[in-house]
Amino acid sequence: MQHRHDIDPPLVAVKDAVERALAEDLLPLGDLTASLVDPSVNASVRLVAREEGVVAGRLCAIETFFQIDASVKMNWHVHDGSAVAKDTVIAHIEGPLRSILTAERTALNFYGHLSGVATKTARIVSLVAAVNPNTRVIDTRKTIPGLRSLQKAAVRAGGGYNHRGNLSEAVLVKDNHLGGISIHEAIARGKTRWPGRMVEVECDTISQAREAASGGATVIMLDNMTPTEAKAAVEAVKEISTEVLIEVSGGINETTAPLYALAGVDLLSVGALTHSVSVLDVGLDLA
Amino acid sequence: MQHRHDIDPPLVAVKDAVERALAEDLLPLGDLTASLVDPSVNASVRLVAREEGVVAGRLCAIETFFQIDASVKMNWHVHDGSAVAKDTVIAHIEGPLRSILTAERTALNFYGHLSGVATKTARIVSLVAAVNPNTRVIDTRKTIPGLRSLQKAAVRAGGGYNHRGNLSEAVLVKDNHLGGISIHEAIARGKTRWPGRMVEVECDTISQAREAASGGATVIMLDNMTPTEAKAAVEAVKEISTEVLIEVSGGINETTAPLYALAGVDLLSVGALTHSVSVLDVGLDLA
Amino acid sequence: MQHRHDIDPPLVAVKDAVERALAEDLLPLGDLTASLVDPSVNASVRLVAREEGVVAGRLCAIETFFQIDASVKMNWHVHDGSAVAKDTVIAHIEGPLRSILTAERTALNFYGHLSGVATKTARIVSLVAAVNPNTRVIDTRKTIPGLRSLQKAAVRAGGGYNHRGNLSEAVLVKDNHLGGISIHEAIARGKTRWPGRMVEVECDTISQAREAASGGATVIMLDNMTPTEAKAAVEAVKEISTEVLIEVSGGINETTAPLYALAGVDLLSVGALTHSVSVLDVGLDLA
Amino acid sequence: MQHRHDIDPPLVAVKDAVERALAEDLLPLGDLTASLVDPSVNASVRLVAREEGVVAGRLCAIETFFQIDASVKMNWHVHDGSAVAKDTVIAHIEGPLRSILTAERTALNFYGHLSGVATKTARIVSLVAAVNPNTRVIDTRKTIPGLRSLQKAAVRAGGGYNHRGNLSEAVLVKDNHLGGISIHEAIARGKTRWPGRMVEVECDTISQAREAASGGATVIMLDNMTPTEAKAAVEAVKEISTEVLIEVSGGINETTAPLYALAGVDLLSVGALTHSVSVLDVGLDLA
Amino acid sequence: MQHRHDIDPPLVAVKDAVERALAEDLLPLGDLTASLVDPSVNASVRLVAREEGVVAGRLCAIETFFQIDASVKMNWHVHDGSAVAKDTVIAHIEGPLRSILTAERTALNFYGHLSGVATKTARIVSLVAAVNPNTRVIDTRKTIPGLRSLQKAAVRAGGGYNHRGNLSEAVLVKDNHLGGISIHEAIARGKTRWPGRMVEVECDTISQAREAASGGATVIMLDNMTPTEAKAAVEAVKEISTEVLIEVSGGINETTAPLYALAGVDLLSVGALTHSVSVLDVGLDLA
Amino acid sequence: MQHRHDIDPPLVAVKDAVERALAEDLLPLGDLTASLVDPSVNASVRLVAREEGVVAGRLCAIETFFQIDASVKMNWHVHDGSAVAKDTVIAHIEGPLRSILTAERTALNFYGHLSGVATKTARIVSLVAAVNPNTRVIDTRKTIPGLRSLQKAAVRAGGGYNHRGNLSEAVLVKDNHLGGISIHEAIARGKTRWPGRMVEVECDTISQAREAASGGATVIMLDNMTPTEAKAAVEAVKEISTEVLIEVSGGINETTAPLYALAGVDLLSVGALTHSVSVLDVGLDLA
Repeated sequence: MQHRHDIDPPLVAVKDAVERALAEDLLPLGDLTASLVDPSVNASVRLVAREEGVVAGRLCAIETFFQIDASVKMNWHVHDGSAVAKDTVIAHIEGPLRSILTAERTALNFYGHLSGVATKTARIVSLVAAVNPNTRVIDTRKTIPGLRSLQKAAVRAGGGYNHRGNLSEAVLVKDNHLGGISIHEAIARGKTRWPGRMVEVECDTISQAREAASGGATVIMLDNMTPTEAKAAVEAVKEISTEVLIEVSGGINETTAPLYALAGVDLLSVGALTHSVSVLDVGLDLA
Repeated sequence: MQHRHDIDPPLVAVKDAVERALAEDLLPLGDLTASLVDPSVNASVRLVAREEGVVAGRLCAIETFFQIDASVKMNWHVHDGSAVAKDTVIAHIEGPLRSILTAERTALNFYGHLSGVATKTARIVSLVAAVNPNTRVIDTRKTIPGLRSLQKAAVRAGGGYNHRGNLSEAVLVKDNHLGGISIHEAIARGKTRWPGRMVEVECDTISQAREAASGGATVIMLDNMTPTEAKAAVEAVKEISTEVLIEVSGGINETTAPLYALAGVDLLSVGALTHSVSVLDVGLDLA
Repeated sequence: MQHRHDIDPPLVAVKDAVERALAEDLLPLGDLTASLVDPSVNASVRLVAREEGVVAGRLCAIETFFQIDASVKMNWHVHDGSAVAKDTVIAHIEGPLRSILTAERTALNFYGHLSGVATKTARIVSLVAAVNPNTRVIDTRKTIPGLRSLQKAAVRAGGGYNHRGNLSEAVLVKDNHLGGISIHEAIARGKTRWPGRMVEVECDTISQAREAASGGATVIMLDNMTPTEAKAAVEAVKEISTEVLIEVSGGINETTAPLYALAGVDLLSVGALTHSVSVLDVGLDLA
Repeated sequence: MQHRHDIDPPLVAVKDAVERALAEDLLPLGDLTASLVDPSVNASVRLVAREEGVVAGRLCAIETFFQIDASVKMNWHVHDGSAVAKDTVIAHIEGPLRSILTAERTALNFYGHLSGVATKTARIVSLVAAVNPNTRVIDTRKTIPGLRSLQKAAVRAGGGYNHRGNLSEAVLVKDNHLGGISIHEAIARGKTRWPGRMVEVECDTISQAREAASGGATVIMLDNMTPTEAKAAVEAVKEISTEVLIEVSGGINETTAPLYALAGVDLLSVGALTHSVSVLDVGLDLA
Repeated sequence: MQHRHDIDPPLVAVKDAVERALAEDLLPLGDLTASLVDPSVNASVRLVAREEGVVAGRLCAIETFFQIDASVKMNWHVHDGSAVAKDTVIAHIEGPLRSILTAERTALNFYGHLSGVATKTARIVSLVAAVNPNTRVIDTRKTIPGLRSLQKAAVRAGGGYNHRGNLSEAVLVKDNHLGGISIHEAIARGKTRWPGRMVEVECDTISQAREAASGGATVIMLDNMTPTEAKAAVEAVKEISTEVLIEVSGGINETTAPLYALAGVDLLSVGALTHSVSVLDVGLDLA
Repeated sequence: MQHRHDIDPPLVAVKDAVERALAEDLLPLGDLTASLVDPSVNASVRLVAREEGVVAGRLCAIETFFQIDASVKMNWHVHDGSAVAKDTVIAHIEGPLRSILTAERTALNFYGHLSGVATKTARIVSLVAAVNPNTRVIDTRKTIPGLRSLQKAAVRAGGGYNHRGNLSEAVLVKDNHLGGISIHEAIARGKTRWPGRMVEVECDTISQAREAASGGATVIMLDNMTPTEAKAAVEAVKEISTEVLIEVSGGINETTAPLYALAGVDLLSVGALTHSVSVLDVGLDLA
């Protein structure tokens, strides 16, 4: 078992996700086509990037082959979070041809999707870093149901950071949560009931942002502001507090991200990192 | 419980997926922010399309609200598979504000992603239908791990068709499966061992396609051919058999799909329907 | 929800078994054939016995229809444990035709198999009762993996009794457990370590049976004795203790069961009640 | 881990079934009787066939011992699908006596039941092969709930073939599915909606069979016809199509199977292969 | 379904925990004793506190009865978090006697344990509140495995607050995490990698606490300090930052808790709230 | 894998409990704090008893480290059931520091709680043994939901014995079960329906105890009697039967337990062994 990095998802999430994916691909009869292949044939294959990108999902791919056939040997050359060029050989895999063919698609589905997340993240991270190294790109809770843990690890692999993992982790007050209570009151309530947690407030206006800052919010989320508005908000908030983090959210893309970074925000949250992902094209080639 | 359509996924898949999605969003402490909201406040909200598209995932959204709070009432105006314009009200939802806020993101994650699948499918289906009503658009096994059943139902909602559900359903012989045996032999073996199943053969050349057709393949998959080559292959194959279905596969997109349709193929398989999906933007508005 | 009888299995076992059975029959794409049926068509069907027997598995059948479509209405006329004649209408079922067709086979698989268990049990119970009303027919741990709870309930429905539910429930000392220790010692150890539990001893000879009786065994299992030998053993044991139960085990069938019953044994254990079961032929007829 | 054959079930099904079987046999307290045995005693045992038959379920037995105690060593001499004579030693097993005693019954329950399926299949396969080598024996969906995957693998071990794995795999139109639509229409609908799938039609009469053949059915199931009627149907159908497979179904047994085979049908489906199985008698002997 | 309060655990945790508890109490044979009771007998029982305390676990008790028998009616008079006197009737429950007897122990096990957590919490909360209303009592990760979500909800019911839910929620740097890096560095790393999260530092000395405060820690945990030392640490820290929360941890009990509260700490974490709990004595009385 | 003792819980219970505990502690993002630690640092730690007691839960601790990182090496010096002095080194553990830190709390939660059960049991066992070696201390069904199997194993580790594992194992007739039928009748019914099982009767008076004894109860439970009453009951019962076991139940503690033991009862059942447990203080020290 290779060493786990801090960008790895918990193994308990990996094992469970792989077990389910194999069940959905193999039950009830197994791999009809592989059954036509001579069981004594061994093969040596390469996992190859067919386009450039940043990879993620190694643990899932390893676990997939392992659950299909523990006798399959793998030699990985690329860690999660690495940028790969087109045609990079990511791993060598050796074992019974049948087992490799049966595991192939599931392993690639994990690896391709999670590398897609990492690649998308890395692209926007690099655009942002070019203009403001202090702005971090973060994900959201807009994840594919059932893949939260794996997708958020892939965001980290791509150089991004994780917004709260789930509803249980932090307080994020939106318009709809304020039923007649003020922002100050909401923050106070959040800080009291959930000691130490991030208390974030979604703000539509600079005046709301000021109120959140003076109320002691951990993070202020500027919702759907233009970069110019965001810049003004940043300045207004920083006058009140230098501790509070300022996040911009709402349909940010590769074009607008650098503009927000220039505006001086701390965090850029991008739902598309996980909700609108294109697979990274990876494949297995017979050696 | 509203009536289930033939484009619906099995309920057993829906319930399980929702249960897992809620667990990953709520454990261990529940919704910290909703806990700040007065539990006696009720709300009436609308599920609204923020852009045009074709929707899917209704059963998942219903199940999400149900598992959070069985007292939430829902009134759905739009069936899966319907095209919606921007600002269409898809459903009215009424109940405790807290419960609605807690369920919101998970319900939208399902509905937005699956509607994204349906919308992507519908777009390519419509381009194809415009030039050849006999060409069907189909999905692949390149699905998001754990969501096979739901994504394939969303493809149906978008007007597409399902290629084999998994490895257990049909025989699909690729290069790597043929270790020294001929296409004829592989087909014969497949038909013998797995009576009645679809036996599909991936072919790189017209001559392979001819061999597959004369061998009695159910489907011939033309792999990475140009539309012109595909046309020639179709003609060559149809001379041999009018029963066999001809599928084109390999990086098909909105531009090339109509060209392949014009070439007369029966099936256009598009991995991107499920592996590279952009969410359809849907949201909840307080009434 | 109809009232549960003492011959019913725990609901937690029923729900879980049905959920798994539906998953194995429906994933990933659902019922392809039912999808061809007009969703607005309703049907009224009868669950009918196509041969005489004793039925079991009602809760499983009910749960199957319920999990497929909660709108299906069922009216059951026959309780588990009832003898039915050929052509008896066991239940009327009404609802969307599609849902009924989808649930049919799974519901029948449960009901037919469990009724097969009950019928086999009832047959041997009745043969035994005719000659010795004090001899009870019991099952074994030779059950179909995963169906222990349901099969043992079906044995009760057939008029049989349950031997220990599993390894955790009672002590049953066989030859192989005695590694150099005497039967007396084994019984003493069992009674000490597991207070109050049944301590049963498998005995091959009358002398062993005597030792077990004098050692305070709860049950003596006579293994592979002829009816004549069993009779002698019963007499020998009863001289020592009138409390101890005497069980006969080992390939008992309909022919030999009455002979053992005549020999005066208390318990006749029959592995075939659960390991070699013929389905009871039941079917759904359109009304 | 020994090599997996094409008659093996998917490992994911094996692991899950064994885990559940052990849970039902051991929870909550474990094996009370084994706890009386000295933990330092090792044993060497043989898995022996007590009657002749064809075996299946090796992976399940291996997994059972493995989950109980990974230190148990096994040496298997017989592959699934092999015919064994009475007293054949199938495997040698060595390890802590306690662990072997605890695993014994669960391992045998799997192995005995699945060998029962294989043996029953092999018997009818051999009767059929003697008269018509082109007739294949196939199973049905009439399986024991929860064991679909394992039973269907055992049918393959016995020389049989698998009918559709579940409702998701193929279209099988029965009377009840036709609500006013013709067989032609049903086939067309099935072929359109589910491209490439087997579309089978249940036919009660020769005229229906002709309609199904001309409509392009993949398989025609002759329901409850006599061998003579079946022969006529075969001839009628073959005039229309030489591609379509003809299946006979309905209470086929060892006596009638050869008669149907002589009638020239392609497929003989036998529900009893999985719904009415007698265990193959296998046991563990201390070496 | 009664309304859920903010002290309730997520329903997904409740349902799962109850399902597992019933499985462990009922499989494989169900309730042997209840099977002796006439199924037609109904009963009306009261859930009664046999000692004073603060209650929690209502949702678990409700779910237990519901899963056993949906026909059982419950009327709850006391919400979670309420103080009850000895002999208080907490709920009236009515339904089949058998079902009530079967559900009784599992329902009481949940309710008694969780009320034990709430009661223990409430006792220490009240002692602390008497001397310093600004000191909050919080729990730890020292919970009973598998009950994290339910126990933490019970702490809230008792008037306590939740420290981080799990390792995924916040950063808590202890001695062992600092392998040669300074506290400043560790905080900076934590704040960078996990934006917005609580970053807590365990400090053994006042000088460490000062370093943590100046480094921008969210919470400083004073480990195993005496109340006097803690007071000094509070004063030293508050000079540097008024934002940082100060937590005391390490074997705090009812005697020492008020002393620490007097020392002015913000948070008192008490592992014993969840790791060393005495059941609250509750029982069912026949009406 | 070290050898399993008879006081060990079934592995299937261990694996499942650990998997769930890790999921609740690590999902979705993993261990945030450990991610700050250099992944190449290895550590050697000792598991140390910080107070004296009797230990249990070794298999759970082993499994926890194993599931986090299979490369962690453990060397255990103390078996479950051993008495340890303060500062005893229970095990040496070596591996990546990160993995050890991540596994630490979950492993300790299991080991500390189960050792708490064993220690509490051992204390009362020793008090009882001092006055009457024939009196056994037993547990009840008042266990922490979800931990039945593990807690009951810990009771055995502490020198106690297990009362019935669950409702499925034995008959225990209480007042509420007798709806108008006599004790004799209830016992007879229990013995008939559940052959060989322990049939226990809860008795409030000596006259009831006499009736239970003459009716053939396996165990008589004296409910809430004083030691003096219990002594009288024992004498009365023993006149009738020397086989029946006499159990005392109801709020027994360390003070009263020896008095009941002196009264000559066979079994002392103590709910507090599992429902009111203080953790045994164990910790990890860096070597």
